[in-house]
Amino acid sequence: MVSETIELRGHIIDSLILPKVLDQILTRGASFKIKEIKIGQKRADQSFARIEVTADERDGLDELVLRLRQHGAEVVERANVQLASAPADGVFPRDFYVTTNQQTFVRWNGKEIEVRPAMMDSAIAVDRRKRGARAVKFFDVRQGDEIVVGHQGIRVVPVQRATSHTDVFQFINTSVAADEPKSAIIRELARELVRARQGKAKIAIVAGQALVLTGAGEHLRRLIEHGYVDLIFAGNAFAVADAERALFGTSLGVNPEHAIPGGGHENHMRAINIIRECGGIAGAVEKKILTRGIMHDCVRRKIDIVLTGSIRDEGPIPGVTTDVVEAQKIMRDKLAGVTHVLLMGTVQHSLAAAGMLAPTAKTICVDIDPSAVERIIEQQPFQSVGLVTDLEPFLHELADCIDKLDAPAKR
Amino acid sequence: MVSETIELRGHIIDSLILPKVLDQILTRGASFKIKEIKIGQKRADQSFARIEVTADERDGLDELVLRLRQHGAEVVERANVQLASAPADGVFPRDFYVTTNQQTFVRWNGKEIEVRPAMMDSAIAVDRRKRGARAVKFFDVRQGDEIVVGHQGIRVVPVQRATSHTDVFQFINTSVAADEPKSAIIRELARELVRARQGKAKIAIVAGQALVLTGAGEHLRRLIEHGYVDLIFAGNAFAVADAERALFGTSLGVNPEHAIPGGGHENHMRAINIIRECGGIAGAVEKKILTRGIMHDCVRRKIDIVLTGSIRDEGPIPGVTTDVVEAQKIMRDKLAGVTHVLLMGTVQHSLAAAGMLAPTAKTICVDIDPSAVERIIEQQPFQSVGLVTDLEPFLHELADCIDKLDAPAKR
Amino acid sequence: MVSETIELRGHIIDSLILPKVLDQILTRGASFKIKEIKIGQKRADQSFARIEVTADERDGLDELVLRLRQHGAEVVERANVQLASAPADGVFPRDFYVTTNQQTFVRWNGKEIEVRPAMMDSAIAVDRRKRGARAVKFFDVRQGDEIVVGHQGIRVVPVQRATSHTDVFQFINTSVAADEPKSAIIRELARELVRARQGKAKIAIVAGQALVLTGAGEHLRRLIEHGYVDLIFAGNAFAVADAERALFGTSLGVNPEHAIPGGGHENHMRAINIIRECGGIAGAVEKKILTRGIMHDCVRRKIDIVLTGSIRDEGPIPGVTTDVVEAQKIMRDKLAGVTHVLLMGTVQHSLAAAGMLAPTAKTICVDIDPSAVERIIEQQPFQSVGLVTDLEPFLHELADCIDKLDAPAKR
Amino acid sequence: MVSETIELRGHIIDSLILPKVLDQILTRGASFKIKEIKIGQKRADQSFARIEVTADERDGLDELVLRLRQHGAEVVERANVQLASAPADGVFPRDFYVTTNQQTFVRWNGKEIEVRPAMMDSAIAVDRRKRGARAVKFFDVRQGDEIVVGHQGIRVVPVQRATSHTDVFQFINTSVAADEPKSAIIRELARELVRARQGKAKIAIVAGQALVLTGAGEHLRRLIEHGYVDLIFAGNAFAVADAERALFGTSLGVNPEHAIPGGGHENHMRAINIIRECGGIAGAVEKKILTRGIMHDCVRRKIDIVLTGSIRDEGPIPGVTTDVVEAQKIMRDKLAGVTHVLLMGTVQHSLAAAGMLAPTAKTICVDIDPSAVERIIEQQPFQSVGLVTDLEPFLHELADCIDKLDAPAKR
Repeated sequence: MVSETIELRGHIIDSLILPKVLDQILTRGASFKIKEIKIGQKRADQSFARIEVTADERDGLDELVLRLRQHGAEVVERANVQLASAPADGVFPRDFYVTTNQQTFVRWNGKEIEVRPAMMDSAIAVDRRKRGARAVKFFDVRQGDEIVVGHQGIRVVPVQRATSHTDVFQFINTSVAADEPKSAIIRELARELVRARQGKAKIAIVAGQALVLTGAGEHLRRLIEHGYVDLIFAGNAFAVADAERALFGTSLGVNPEHAIPGGGHENHMRAINIIRECGGIAGAVEKKILTRGIMHDCVRRKIDIVLTGSIRDEGPIPGVTTDVVEAQKIMRDKLAGVTHVLLMGTVQHSLAAAGMLAPTAKTICVDIDPSAVERIIEQQPFQSVGLVTDLEPFLHELADCIDKLDAPAKR
Repeated sequence: MVSETIELRGHIIDSLILPKVLDQILTRGASFKIKEIKIGQKRADQSFARIEVTADERDGLDELVLRLRQHGAEVVERANVQLASAPADGVFPRDFYVTTNQQTFVRWNGKEIEVRPAMMDSAIAVDRRKRGARAVKFFDVRQGDEIVVGHQGIRVVPVQRATSHTDVFQFINTSVAADEPKSAIIRELARELVRARQGKAKIAIVAGQALVLTGAGEHLRRLIEHGYVDLIFAGNAFAVADAERALFGTSLGVNPEHAIPGGGHENHMRAINIIRECGGIAGAVEKKILTRGIMHDCVRRKIDIVLTGSIRDEGPIPGVTTDVVEAQKIMRDKLAGVTHVLLMGTVQHSLAAAGMLAPTAKTICVDIDPSAVERIIEQQPFQSVGLVTDLEPFLHELADCIDKLDAPAKR
Repeated sequence: MVSETIELRGHIIDSLILPKVLDQILTRGASFKIKEIKIGQKRADQSFARIEVTADERDGLDELVLRLRQHGAEVVERANVQLASAPADGVFPRDFYVTTNQQTFVRWNGKEIEVRPAMMDSAIAVDRRKRGARAVKFFDVRQGDEIVVGHQGIRVVPVQRATSHTDVFQFINTSVAADEPKSAIIRELARELVRARQGKAKIAIVAGQALVLTGAGEHLRRLIEHGYVDLIFAGNAFAVADAERALFGTSLGVNPEHAIPGGGHENHMRAINIIRECGGIAGAVEKKILTRGIMHDCVRRKIDIVLTGSIRDEGPIPGVTTDVVEAQKIMRDKLAGVTHVLLMGTVQHSLAAAGMLAPTAKTICVDIDPSAVERIIEQQPFQSVGLVTDLEPFLHELADCIDKLDAPAKR
Repeated sequence: MVSETIELRGHIIDSLILPKVLDQILTRGASFKIKEIKIGQKRADQSFARIEVTADERDGLDELVLRLRQHGAEVVERANVQLASAPADGVFPRDFYVTTNQQTFVRWNGKEIEVRPAMMDSAIAVDRRKRGARAVKFFDVRQGDEIVVGHQGIRVVPVQRATSHTDVFQFINTSVAADEPKSAIIRELARELVRARQGKAKIAIVAGQALVLTGAGEHLRRLIEHGYVDLIFAGNAFAVADAERALFGTSLGVNPEHAIPGGGHENHMRAINIIRECGGIAGAVEKKILTRGIMHDCVRRKIDIVLTGSIRDEGPIPGVTTDVVEAQKIMRDKLAGVTHVLLMGTVQHSLAAAGMLAPTAKTICVDIDPSAVERIIEQQPFQSVGLVTDLEPFLHELADCIDKLDAPAKR
C-alpha cells in the first residue's frame, strides 16, 4: 500500500473538480481519506481540500496521480519538474509528460512558470536561459531540447465556473438538441459576439463546404462586412465551392435558385481551373474574375484565410497548404490569441482547430449531425455551446441578430 | 419450365416500370423474351410491351407474376378474380391478395372495377350486389365477406410521370440532404400549396411534438390562419406540448425565450391536468382557459383534429383516441380525400398516415434525421418531397413564402 | 431577498449530489452560503452539508427548492406534506407534486412514509387509514383521493454510488460508442446477469421488431432456454415478425438465409391472418401451427408476454392490448419487481418501460442509433449501460458468454 | 428549337440507361422523339435506341447532350474529339472535358481510343505519338499537353448488368440497413473474395482508426494471414492505434480487455514517439520493438501500406505521406489494378479511394453510420455492397466464413 497527498483549490465543487477527482480514485480501484476540507461559503469564495490517496502499488498510484493532476490536483510535496534531453530531432524522451487542454504550470528552480502557449497533446519544453516553458509538438522538438518527463512539479488549473455572472458558455451541458428551440440561444450568442467585438476579441470561423452548399455564404458575408471575422480556416473544397458559386452561380453544379436537384462536377472542376490559371484567389480578385463571394470579401478586407489540403481535394487551388504538418504549424500560429470560434459543418477541421485553441477560448459548434456536435464540444465542456441544426437558418438568424444589435451603435 | 405472358402499358420507360419489371425477373432467377415492344416517340405517347416470362417451376412463376403485377404488369389471358369467403370476423381467407399503395382494378364478371378506397396492406372485398370493390383491413372484414384470393384478374396501375409539366413532386429522387440548399424547394412547395388551395385541395398536417418544442408552432398557426390546414393529425404529446406552451409559456419546462436549457416535467403534467379538468381542449377554449396556440386556433376555426394515443403518453387528455384500432378507423376516414400532406417531426404518425393515403396524394416530409426522411418517402417515390432540416426554420420560410404569394390575391 | 436552508446527506460528492445542487442554485440566479459541511473521509463514510439558499423572490425560491429536493435536498424545517382532494376522477388538485424517478419519502403525521411503488411523472396519493403513500397516474386517481400538493414534507433519495465495489452500472457515463470495443462490457454484463439469476433477479426484455429482423431471435431464444427471461414486453410488430419467421422463414418477405434483398409484405400479412385464425399466439402453439420462435418458446415456458398496440400496427393479433391506457396499467403491474431490463431496438417501448421501472432497476440499452441510446439511458445515469451496436452480434456474444458462464454450474 | 440525335446500345433497359437518359431529357425541359428502338428479346441480347432530342437553345442542348453522353449516349454524327493545349503547368484549357467514373473512349483520327487509366473528375490528355489517351489530374498536366475540350467524339460505356449470372454486386440497391439480417450477405461476400483470390484479384483494404478501436484488428490480421490483403490504405491515426495496441495493449488509453471506459491520450502519444524513434514502422519491426499487430504483419508479409496525413494527425510517424497531392499520386498508382476494395470505418479515405478506382472494381463498404454508407456507395451503384453495421462483428464473421471456405482447399 502506497499513499500520496494531493490538494485541490478553487471552485472545486461547482466546477466539478472534487467530484471528478474522487470519481477517478474510485474508478481506478484506489481509496481516499479527506484530511482537510474547507468549502467556500459563498459563490465567489475559493474552496480547498487535502486528500490522501492510497493504492496497492507504486505504478498504479503514479498513473492515478498523473490523471488527478490533469484534473487540477497538486501533490503536496513541491518538487521541481524533471527534464530530459530530446534524443533526436522530432523525438521526445521516452517518459515525456503529455499536456491537456488546460492551463498548466511547471515548477522549475523553485519557481512556477506558466506553459505558453498551452496546447493539448504536446510535450513541454523548458528553456533554461529564457526561464520559459512552452508546449511543443513532435515537429517542433530538436535534439537536445529539454523536455519535461514524469509528472512531478506540474500543476494544471482547470477552467472554473465564472463567479461574476453565468454566461451561455458556462453550463455543464450546453448541447442544444434538434428538437429544442434555438432562437434564444442564438440571440445570446449574438450578444456575446457583439460584446466581444467591442473588447479585444479575435473571432475565427472554421467552416466546411456545407456552409456554402446550403446557401449560408451570404450570411457569413454579412458577418465579415460587419467586422465579426478575423480569420477563416477551411479546406480547399470550401474555397472552391465559394468560387464555383461566385463564377457560375452553382454549387456542385446545382443552381440553388432552382428547385431541381441533380447536377455535376464540371463547374466545380472549372472553378478550380480558373483559380489555378489566375495563380490563386487573390489573383482572381485582382483580375476582376472573382467579384463576389466569401473568398473575394476576405481578400478585399485583408482577412486571414488559412486553407488546408486533404486527400479528397481536387486541384487544389494555389494558396492551399498541401503539407499537413506545415498546415498545422500555420494553424497554430494563426489560432494563437483567438478568443471566439465558430465551428460549422466540418468535423475534421473543427477537431483540428479545437485541439489548438487556448484553454480560455469560447467555441460555438453548429452541425446538423448530433454526433458531430457531441464529439467536438466534449473537448471544452465549460466553454462550448453546441447546436444541432441546419447551417443556413442558423447563420441567417445570427447575422440578423447582430444586424439589430449593431444598428443603434452605428447611428 | 413454365411461362406466362405479361403486358405493360403507359409511360413504362420513363416511369421506370419496364426496367423494374425486367429487374425483378432477373433478380428472381427467371428469364424473359420481349415478344413485342412499341415505345412512344414523344413525351405524351403511351408505350406498350408484351413479355414472355419463363421460370423453372410453377410456384416461383406465380410468386414472380404476383410481384410483376404489383409493378403494373397485366397477364394476357384475362381471367376473373377468384373470391373466397372470410372464415370468421377479422380473418381473411388463407390465400388473400395483399394490396399495394397503387391504384388497383379487379376483373369481375368480365368487367373491370376500381378498388375504392385503395389502401396498401389490405385485402380486397368484392360486393356482388353493389358491383364494387374496396380495400379492407383486418378490423373491417366480417365472416362471409367475399375476399379476392390469388392474383388472377388484378391490374395495378402505378403512378406514372406527368406528361404535361414536371413538378417538384415528380422527380425520382427528391430527398434534399442536410448539406443542400432548400430555399428554392420551399418556394416551389409554397407555390404548389397556393395552387392547390385555389383548387379543391384538402391539406393535412401530421406533426410530432418536436414541432412545438422547436418553436415552429407560431408558423403553423400562420398556415392555419391563411386557410392552409384542413386536418391535423398528431399524438397526445403534441397537443399537451401546445397547451403547456399556451398555458405556461414553456416547452417541457423550458421557456424558449430564455437561453437557459434544462427544465422539468411539471408544467407538462399540470397542462394535462388542466385540460382534463376542463373536459378537453374544446372545453378549455370555451372556458377561456386556453386562449392561444395551435389547438386553440383549430377549435376556433373548426379544423379537424385527430389525436391518437401511444404507450408513452401521460394523461392522456380527453379527445385522444386511446384504442389504436379505433384510431386507425378514424384516421382512414379523415384521410380520405386528402390531396396534400405535410409530415413533420414524427416517424410513427407519418408512416401510419402515409399507409392510408390515396395513391395520388402528395407528401412533403420534413425531419432533421435523414433516416427518418428516407423511411417515410420511400413509400411514394413519385409523389414525395423529403427535406432533411430543422422544423422551425422550414415552417418559418414556408409560411413567409405563402404570405408573399397570398398577399396580392388579398388586395 | 428570501432564504431557505437545505440539507444534503450521503455520498453527496462522489454521487454528484452536492455539485448538482450548487449548479442548480447558480444556474437559476440564486446564491448560496454553506453553513456546515462534513465530508466523509473514506469511501464508505457519509457526508453532510447544510446550505442556505437565497433568491430574490419567494416564487423563484420555491421553484428552486422544489428542484433541489428532486436532487435529494431536504429542507431543514420538517413540515408534514400538504394534501388536497382530487376534484374529479382522473384529475389531480391543481398544485399536485410531480414525482421523479427516485426513491421518495413523505412526512405525514410526523412520520416518514416511503412512496411505494415509486414511479416518475406521477402524483402521490396518501392513504390515511393504511398510513401508506403510492405514486398514482392520471388513470388511477378517483375523486376525493388525497393527493400531495406543493413540495413540503417530501424527501427524495437519489441513487448513490455503491461503496462496496464499483460495478459496470456505476459509472457516470457508460454509453459505449460505435467505435469503442464492446466485448469486455458484454462479458461483464453476462456476469451480472448470471449473478443476478442466482439471486432473486427478475429480468425483462423490451424489444423492437429489429431484433427479429436482424436475425437476433435465435440468441434471445437461448437466453429464454437458460432461464434468463422472466418477461417480454414488445409490440404487435415484434410478435408478427417472429411468427412470420417461424411460419414462412422470412422477415418482411426476406429470407435471411439468402443474400438477395427486397421482399414484400405478403408473408407479414399472412402471418397475422393465421395467428388471428388461431385466436392468438397460444392457440397457434396449441394447434401446432406455430412450432418455433420466440413467442412459441415463451408460451411453452409460460413466460409473461406483454404486447401493446400502436397506430402503425397491422392486425393486430389477438392478445395485443390495443388500448394504450389499459396497456400502461398492465405494463406497470408486470414491471413491478423487475431488477434488470434489456432495452433493444425500440425507442418507443424502451422509454415507456424505463418510465415505470423502480429507481433501483438496472437497464442495458442496445441500439445502432446513438441518439436512441442516449435518450433512453439519460433517465437513469447511475444504473444504465448503453451500447451503440448491431443487435444480432450483441445478443450472439451475450448468449455465448452466458453459455460459458453457465456451463460449469450445470455439470 | 435545335435538335441532336443520340444512340444508345447494350443492356439499355435493365441497366437503366434508357430510363436515365429520358429522365434527364424531361428534367432539363427538353423533349424527345424515339426514331428507332430495338429491344433485345432475351437477357443476353443487346438493345438499341436512336433518339432525337430537341431543346429551345443551342447552349441548353449542348449541356444536355454532354450529360447524356455521361450516361452512355453517343451522338450520331461521329466527329473527332477537339483538342486544345494546356496554357500552363497544372492548368487545363478552359473548356476541358471532365471525366466520369465510367469507361470512356475518344475518337481521334477517325479511330476510337480507350482512355487508360480511366479516372473520374479528370481531364483527358491525348498523346499523338503514342496514339493514346489517359485521364490526367491537375497535378499531371504540363504546358502544351493536348487536352480534350468540348464533348464531341467522346463515348462513355456505363457498367451494365452482367448477363451470365446475377452476383451480389449487381443489384441496383444493395445497401443493407441496420435492421436487416447480414449473415447471408457476408457469406456471399466471403465466397466472392475466395473466388476472386483464386483468380487474379487484387484486394485493397481502406480502413479508419475505428477498425482498430473496436477490436476488429485481430480479424483483419486473419485476412492478411490467409493472403486476402494486397494493399492497405489508411491514415496516420490507424497505424498509431495499431501500434498503441501492440505496444501497450490499449486503444486511446483504454484496455479493451477491461470493461472500464475512459482513458487518455498518453499511450497514443508515446506510441508515436517510439515509432518515430525507430525511424518508422519497418524499423520498429526490425528492432523487435513492434512484434504484433496489423502493421507488423504487413511489414513481415511485404504487403503494401499507404499511409496518408491529415491536419488532425499527431506526429505523424515516419512513412506517412504528409503532402496530400503527393499522397494522391501514390494512391492512384497503388490502386491501379485493384479489383476488390473493402472500405471500413472511414468516410474521408473511402471517398478518396473510390474516386480513383477503375470502373470495374467491386467495393464493399461497411460503417455503423447509414449516411456514411450511402455517400460512399452512391458512386458505384452497380458494383457496390454497403452494410450498416458494427465493424468488429462484421470482420469477425467475414474472417470466419473465409476460414471455413479455405479450409478444404488447404487440406
